[in-house]
Amino acid sequence: MEYTGRASKLLASVGAAIGDIVEVRRGRESYQGTLMPHHEFSGDPIVTLKLSNGYNVGISIVGDAAVKIVSKKAERNVVDRTLPRSSSKKDVAFLGTGGTIASYVDYRTGAVHPAKSAEELAFSVPELMDMCNLRAKVLCSIYSENMEVSHWQALARAAADELRSGAVGVIIPHGTDTMGFSSAALSFMLRNLTGPVVLVGSQRSSDRPSSDATMNLLAATRLCVESDLGEVVVVMHGESSDSYCSVHRGTKVRKMHASRRDAFKSINADPIARIEGPDISYITEYMRRSSGETLVQDKMDTKVGLVHFYPGFDTEHFDIIAGHVDGLVIAGTGLGHVSERLIGSIRRAVKDGVQVMITTQCLYGAVNLNVYSTGRDMIEAGAVPLGDMLPEVAYVKLMWALGQADGPDEVQRLMLKDVAGEMSQRRRI
Amino acid sequence: MEYTGRASKLLASVGAAIGDIVEVRRGRESYQGTLMPHHEFSGDPIVTLKLSNGYNVGISIVGDAAVKIVSKKAERNVVDRTLPRSSSKKDVAFLGTGGTIASYVDYRTGAVHPAKSAEELAFSVPELMDMCNLRAKVLCSIYSENMEVSHWQALARAAADELRSGAVGVIIPHGTDTMGFSSAALSFMLRNLTGPVVLVGSQRSSDRPSSDATMNLLAATRLCVESDLGEVVVVMHGESSDSYCSVHRGTKVRKMHASRRDAFKSINADPIARIEGPDISYITEYMRRSSGETLVQDKMDTKVGLVHFYPGFDTEHFDIIAGHVDGLVIAGTGLGHVSERLIGSIRRAVKDGVQVMITTQCLYGAVNLNVYSTGRDMIEAGAVPLGDMLPEVAYVKLMWALGQADGPDEVQRLMLKDVAGEMSQRRRI
Repeated sequence: MEYTGRASKLLASVGAAIGDIVEVRRGRESYQGTLMPHHEFSGDPIVTLKLSNGYNVGISIVGDAAVKIVSKKAERNVVDRTLPRSSSKKDVAFLGTGGTIASYVDYRTGAVHPAKSAEELAFSVPELMDMCNLRAKVLCSIYSENMEVSHWQALARAAADELRSGAVGVIIPHGTDTMGFSSAALSFMLRNLTGPVVLVGSQRSSDRPSSDATMNLLAATRLCVESDLGEVVVVMHGESSDSYCSVHRGTKVRKMHASRRDAFKSINADPIARIEGPDISYITEYMRRSSGETLVQDKMDTKVGLVHFYPGFDTEHFDIIAGHVDGLVIAGTGLGHVSERLIGSIRRAVKDGVQVMITTQCLYGAVNLNVYSTGRDMIEAGAVPLGDMLPEVAYVKLMWALGQADGPDEVQRLMLKDVAGEMSQRRRI
Repeated sequence: MEYTGRASKLLASVGAAIGDIVEVRRGRESYQGTLMPHHEFSGDPIVTLKLSNGYNVGISIVGDAAVKIVSKKAERNVVDRTLPRSSSKKDVAFLGTGGTIASYVDYRTGAVHPAKSAEELAFSVPELMDMCNLRAKVLCSIYSENMEVSHWQALARAAADELRSGAVGVIIPHGTDTMGFSSAALSFMLRNLTGPVVLVGSQRSSDRPSSDATMNLLAATRLCVESDLGEVVVVMHGESSDSYCSVHRGTKVRKMHASRRDAFKSINADPIARIEGPDISYITEYMRRSSGETLVQDKMDTKVGLVHFYPGFDTEHFDIIAGHVDGLVIAGTGLGHVSERLIGSIRRAVKDGVQVMITTQCLYGAVNLNVYSTGRDMIEAGAVPLGDMLPEVAYVKLMWALGQADGPDEVQRLMLKDVAGEMSQRRRI
């Protein structure tokens, strides 16, 4: 967007255009950086600069603020776009998928657009290249609400390929909306990981002063290069400020806020680690890098549904859905309950060969179908309680278990086994 | 349950039976109370006593522990069960519905069973009668997962009747599983409240040493007698310890843990107040008691559905459900998104006259369909974004709005209007 009002006048007075490198002075403060487009969420008198360290800063041009041109965009040379390689650095793979984090800003031109090539994606945060040799690929460029099971499978295969061919870690920039689903899917599909597979997103796009993209990408890269982690994880802001990033286990993480930068929370678990500047501090136990080869188990049965129970829930809708699927995850109330009206429907579905799994819509805590008679009736009807597994994770796992297993007993055995940290040790309530 | 092991032997050695008043000494500690049945979740060497203040205590009978009989159950007189009345006290109405909180323990006999009469319900916590004249009715005795819209309507009418006939407040002991749905329903159905309508539950039944029933009931009664609140609220433990109770607005509260005593949280809002012993401290603005008469608007259209979107969501299932309802609430991802595959289905449903409302499955934060193209397409298809309203609350409100309104425009006007604190002031993200 174009600047308006006071900012527009001040910039016009010196002939500054978007993409120019400028210096903004106000009182004793002074900032030098690339002049970015005006962001619709910034206030009127805010000028946004991209500093040389990759961070954006919004400067309120009130009082004695003054702008000076350091170099015009047109006068600067075109920078070589080949990714640099150094034999002293380790290889990290980037697999682009789209989402807010891929709304990259070309830091030389100031233009905002989705990354069209692997190089563009990498060059958007040039400091990444100080830490590692980047190999970059764009697998798709979609908002994450459009992710499908086939995308998860393609990601799993591409991540395994990168690890097998020497990358010490894989970074997957991903839209945040369904990042928890993708991280769960990759957690089940990828076994024997020789390095971390890190999903990373941003809640504010790179053209906004408050963008969390750069810090999250830097933390993800540090994890790949410096840690001995061999798990699928999500790396996002741990607080709404830029204090640290949290490393969440891929099967325990959920987007718990529509817009905050610290929207992602580990549920029924602590984060694995926090990354604060150059320091990685571990909080929980984790799987170390495997010494063998990374395996892909990506067969999925997509005929699985997820339904949330609520008062007034229509048993007819349940019966229709149950008639079309091989497996159904119910997010029940409290300890995992549904109304007694629904128990006959569960019994019929199980008799027809549908795998019916029970989780809780409370999200926190574990299901327990042994406390009340409702739960005991559900067990008797053939429903399988899944401890403290998140409903979404259970949904993804059920597709995977149905894809992997030979027969219904094997499906239940897989569902009740902790495959990738998705189910905490059973505890007495 | 019978005591076993060490506890059983110690009790047998003095001839103590459940229901007897006993004294348990251990070191320099000493407890006197009614011997309660052994609870299956208590460890082996734990003896549970109901103290005279109504609280249960579990005592580990290790080391030098000794038991002495104070009075045998059989020797005590039968207490008069008529509810006492005093002209100096205010009237508070109890409307029993069932649930864990209604698994009352007869404190004279120690037996655990659901309250069969209004008096039994009141006598289970006799200290309540020190604060007020109790009027008690049992409306139903069901687990809350079996609550239906007709129960909400009966509760609304009964609560209004009690307020109109002089009660200063209404307390509704309720199962916790769907308490948030019921509190939302009552919030929309009851207007012009002359006193608080307080839903109160317990996460641990009264026969367990850790029961939260007594403290929650006492706090609810205090709120009825001492506050000037005229809203539907939920009163539950504010922390897992017995430090204080929180007063949650009926449209902003959600059960966020399967088993913890502080499972209920206000979402996208602070609790209205906290109650710590005799002190009520207000945290937010609230509606004062109305001076007019309490009104009931209990007409509901039950042909409403609630669906959670997820990757792999079957548009066919959506179309089938949409074909059977007058209104549909979607819990989308992030800012309220669904996959582009689903947008055509939304458009068709809206064209067929279905009211399609958008909330976020993140629970925290607000939907905003203006940031990304997906959201703008959803708006164009006719979906209505509901700010920071919880999905469950939107579901209940849509039934109510369809029941109240003349025509679709009026439904949307009601849905976008803050009727009972369900939608916070719009904020810029």
